[in-house]
Formats: sequence, C-alpha cells, structure tokens
Amino acid sequence: MDGIHEMKSASEIVNLMMNKDEFSSWMDIKIENIEKGKCSLSCHIRQEMLNGFSIAHGGIAYSIADSTLAFAANSYGFQSFSIETSISHLVKVQQGDVLKSNSIEIHRGNKTAIYQIEVFNQNKIMVAIMKGTVYISKIVW
Amino acid sequence: MDGIHEMKSASEIVNLMMNKDEFSSWMDIKIENIEKGKCSLSCHIRQEMLNGFSIAHGGIAYSIADSTLAFAANSYGFQSFSIETSISHLVKVQQGDVLKSNSIEIHRGNKTAIYQIEVFNQNKIMVAIMKGTVYISKIVW
Amino acid sequence: MDGIHEMKSASEIVNLMMNKDEFSSWMDIKIENIEKGKCSLSCHIRQEMLNGFSIAHGGIAYSIADSTLAFAANSYGFQSFSIETSISHLVKVQQGDVLKSNSIEIHRGNKTAIYQIEVFNQNKIMVAIMKGTVYISKIVW
Amino acid sequence: MDGIHEMKSASEIVNLMMNKDEFSSWMDIKIENIEKGKCSLSCHIRQEMLNGFSIAHGGIAYSIADSTLAFAANSYGFQSFSIETSISHLVKVQQGDVLKSNSIEIHRGNKTAIYQIEVFNQNKIMVAIMKGTVYISKIVW
Repeated sequence: MDGIHEMKSASEIVNLMMNKDEFSSWMDIKIENIEKGKCSLSCHIRQEMLNGFSIAHGGIAYSIADSTLAFAANSYGFQSFSIETSISHLVKVQQGDVLKSNSIEIHRGNKTAIYQIEVFNQNKIMVAIMKGTVYISKIVW
Repeated sequence: MDGIHEMKSASEIVNLMMNKDEFSSWMDIKIENIEKGKCSLSCHIRQEMLNGFSIAHGGIAYSIADSTLAFAANSYGFQSFSIETSISHLVKVQQGDVLKSNSIEIHRGNKTAIYQIEVFNQNKIMVAIMKGTVYISKIVW
Repeated sequence: MDGIHEMKSASEIVNLMMNKDEFSSWMDIKIENIEKGKCSLSCHIRQEMLNGFSIAHGGIAYSIADSTLAFAANSYGFQSFSIETSISHLVKVQQGDVLKSNSIEIHRGNKTAIYQIEVFNQNKIMVAIMKGTVYISKIVW
Repeated sequence: MDGIHEMKSASEIVNLMMNKDEFSSWMDIKIENIEKGKCSLSCHIRQEMLNGFSIAHGGIAYSIADSTLAFAANSYGFQSFSIETSISHLVKVQQGDVLKSNSIEIHRGNKTAIYQIEVFNQNKIMVAIMKGTVYISKIVW
C-alpha cells in the first residue's frame, strides 16, 4: 500500500519452502525450531531410508543437514543458495533412530554466509557434521 | 575348499551392496558400469525428489554421488567407509532430468583413498562434483 | 579517453597480484602459465618449509594451491575472493622436490566459481588436490 | 625396564614435533595450550606473511590451523596424519594481527578422528574455520 516492502518472517519463508517440497514430505521432516539465522529439524529413520548394510544411506543425514542449512540461510528474507557443503559421517544411523539437526551461524556477510549443521540421534550422539557455504541473492522472499 | 580365500569381483560386491538397499531402490538407481576402482550410476529425476523450488533436493545429487563413491571404493574387495565428502552443486537439476555419475580414483593408499565423483545431466552438463575420502578396512567382502 | 574501460589481461592482473606479494616472494613461487581461467605455478621446496617430520608443512602445498586458485579466478578481470577451500594431502613432499600446480575450471557462474587445483611433484605424482570456491565481485582490476 | 611402554605426554609429543619444525619456527608459532585432544596456538602476523593485497596470504591462517590440528590429533600418543582439511576464510587478516587458534574434538574413533579448528584475531573475531580429518596410526610417539 505504502510502497514499503514488508519482509516475511522466518516461519513464513520456511513454510513457503516446505509447501510443495515433495522430498522433505517423503522424508517426513519436522520443523523443530525456526528463527532468523537458526533452524532445527527432526526426522524419523524408516526402512525405505536404509542401504544394503541396513543402516541409513549417507544421503539421508545429508538431506536433513542440507534442508537445515537452506532454511537457516533463507530465514532473513533473501533467497540464498547452497554452493558448497562438506559433511562428515561420524556414527551409523539405524532404523528407528530419530535424528535432530541444529544450525550454527559461523559467519554472515553481504554476499555469502557459512553455517555449521550438527545432526544428533535420540541419544544426543552426533552422527554427522556439515560445514555449508551459501550465496545470498538480492531476491526477496 | 583349499583354504585360499577367493576375492569377489567388483560386480559381485556391488550386487551384494545393492541387494536390500531400499533407498537406492526408491531412487531407482541403475548401475551403468562397475569395475575395480571405478563406478558409473544413473538415476531418473522424479517429482518425489523435488524441493519447494520445484528443482531436485540437494540430497538427491549427493545420494547418487555417495553411492558411486561407495561402490568404487568397495570394488577392490575390502569393506570401505566414507569418512568425509565435500560436494558442490553447480547447476539446477529438474524433473525429467537423467543424472549420470562417474568416479575418478584420485589416490588409493593402504588405509584411505580419495575419489572424485562427477554428476552430469542428460545434456552432459556437470551438475555436481564431490571429493570423497574413504577408510579402507581389512574386512573382506 | 573514450570512456570505454579497457580490461587488463590475465598476465597484467597476475603481475599486479604478485608485485608486493611478500609471502609468494618468500616461497619463491614462479608463474609457469597464466591465461583466462587457467594458471600453473611452481615452487622449489627448501629446508625452511619443512615441519618436525622433515617433510614439507601442509601449509606449503596449500599456499601454492591457494595462489593458483586466486590467479585463475582473478584472471578474467574481476576481483575474486576465495570463500571455501578443501584440500587433500596425498603424498609426502620433501626437501628438494619441485612442486607444480595446475588449475581446472569446474564451473564459472556470475557470482561464484569453482576450481580444482592439482599439485604434482617433479616425478609427476599428485601430492595434493584442492576444490576451491570463489566469490566474483564487480570490482574491475 | 619392565617392558611396559610408557606413553609420552601431550606436551612431550608436541615438543618433539616443534623441535626442528623449521616452518613453524619461521612463522614464530607459540603453543598457548596443549593437552590430550586439545591444542591452542598463537602467531603474530608479519610483513613477510602478506600477499599483494597487503593482507595475510590464505596459507598463513591455514598453516596455523593445520598445525593446531596436527598437535591435537597426535597428543594421545599415536602418530596421526591429516588426510582432508576444509577451511573457510571469513575475515581479512592484517599485519600486526595476533591470531589464536583453538581445537574442538568433534569425533575420535579408532582409525580416524575429526577436529574443528577455529582461528580468531586479537579482537576475538573468528577469521577462519577448519574441519579436519586425520588418520590415526598404530605408531607410538
């Protein structure tokens, strides 16, 4: 009305991102917490997520971490895109485990930002750690 | 019979790994080529693999690359485990795209090895590149 | 004169970067080749570069690779800054070795680019491999 | 005497590593703290460490982080070797800055371990962060 663009809140943005997100829906990812620059997700490990060793495929922990990174990075209102992610798998993830992720904002500049994402199991043991770099565009959500 | 342990071939090992691999089965990953230290896979991008931007979730290209790494690293007959993977997403992956991965063995020592995994789309454009480090155990397949 | 900004050549840019570069001078880095998007350097390993194991400190191969990345990324005429680098040390580097680096441009977008830097010794054995991500600014050299 | 091998302390090991370490000596790296699995170093940025932009070469922060990783990883008494390091440079480092590093042990298994190394300047601003993976050998210091 008054020409001032109103920025969406962190929750509104993540809801927009989660809507129609078919893969997160298949994974049944739950949002535990979302605020500016910070995100926490959870996911229950099902049989369809296992590999031939009967442990979760590495792509599962990566996907949870990558979504956490995307939500944390986009939460300020500017569309942001992952450009590099480095993940270490620390402990085996098994069927029935409930994974929970947390993001830590290491650095946020004007154009790029770096987040650390930690993924824990239900026993609070860290199963994976990611260092992710994003590019921050000028496109407003 | 004669006490000599016969090493399984690269194909036999990957077939063992793919059997009961429920996530690769969900992704419908196809083995294009497998030989000692080398693997190529393909995967057709379906609607269930998309995120809220209607492009493939980053976890999809990661999963293909991670499986390629695992198969290439295990193909010599010793069980090997990914310890660190760094992936760069270069180009958007869309529904209907057919991704194809290739592994390059950068270095193989006694205990650890490093592979580069390149993922291309059907237009031979590289969509993702991974540098992966594995630990090579003494456990024979 | 005519208002058209003349872009500097890759060589001119790298000469500007090398001038007053005191650390490269200490390392005695030589430019083997420089062209748009491509760089090759060499460096002779001296006693002052060794660690307590009497092999070259990991920071030496990293520094050569990082300079190669910087020169290749800046060679188009826009100031570019490394934001993430992942390096694997493959083979021990010893006093008297002559290292030679090569850059490969994996992807170059408008805002970010990814380069792979390979470092070889005088026997053409790869001693280190880096995947580096740079941010490309609008600042003209 | 009694056939029992006495393990060296963290300090004894790092002193052995620092002795004859010519590059750390050139950098004038100081040990701030060393204990089992934990290390902190400091380094004063001199003119010889600058690049052509008159800021510290990326190899300087990397070298401090890499030494911190090496000392923390070796401190348990078994020779350990860096196999993969991923570093993000966050803030420019300038002549006269005093950098201080801290290690965090993310995970320590039997064969491999992962450390995070944070590097700060004298204003307690983080200038670089590294995720490093090491291989733990059976060789006793």
